[in-house]
Amino acid sequence: HYNTRNGGCVNPAKALDLLRSVLQGAMNKEIKKVMDKYRHFFDAAAQNIRDNYGEKSVSESNIMSTFQDAMEQAKEIFKSDETSSIASGKTEGEDIKDEPVR
Amino acid sequence: HYNTRNGGCVNPAKALDLLRSVLQGAMNKEIKKVMDKYRHFFDAAAQNIRDNYGEKSVSESNIMSTFQDAMEQAKEIFKSDETSSIASGKTEGEDIKDEPVR
Repeated sequence: HYNTRNGGCVNPAKALDLLRSVLQGAMNKEIKKVMDKYRHFFDAAAQNIRDNYGEKSVSESNIMSTFQDAMEQAKEIFKSDETSSIASGKTEGEDIKDEPVR
Repeated sequence: HYNTRNGGCVNPAKALDLLRSVLQGAMNKEIKKVMDKYRHFFDAAAQNIRDNYGEKSVSESNIMSTFQDAMEQAKEIFKSDETSSIASGKTEGEDIKDEPVR
């Protein structure tokens, strides 16, 4: 029951967003672990750029910005089944053979 | 060497974004696994809303939209150390005790 206290109608999007906000910290923790595994690729690329173009050519904020872009692109995972093959277990350029963990 | 072929100057952001695009499929696969673990919370909430407000009150697209919002909020992980405590291992409302996986 979502409208007992304030007497208002339920807003499904708001109810789901409340749940999301409660879980966001835990989700962030796990997403960070995933992204930390990829961090060394970006560090190596950044070092290569620095070696060739100088220390100032690439900064930590370039890498952080790239990781934020990765989160933006990860939204593609959650496009609806009707409009995308990604949500059903495939990503661009790579077949995913694992079963979804539920 | 990033400018051998086209003779242009290196753009660090573009070089890092190229690497990101190469790795995005693999990252998406792992992020999807993380989010699939949380899916049942949202299914349960959606069922509760449906039980109380009817079958049409909440849809799969509401849940997908919420997951996209979760990706948006996950960008907070990658705000620079200077401006946020999250990148250094803490998330709002939760202390992270695990060491970063590198």
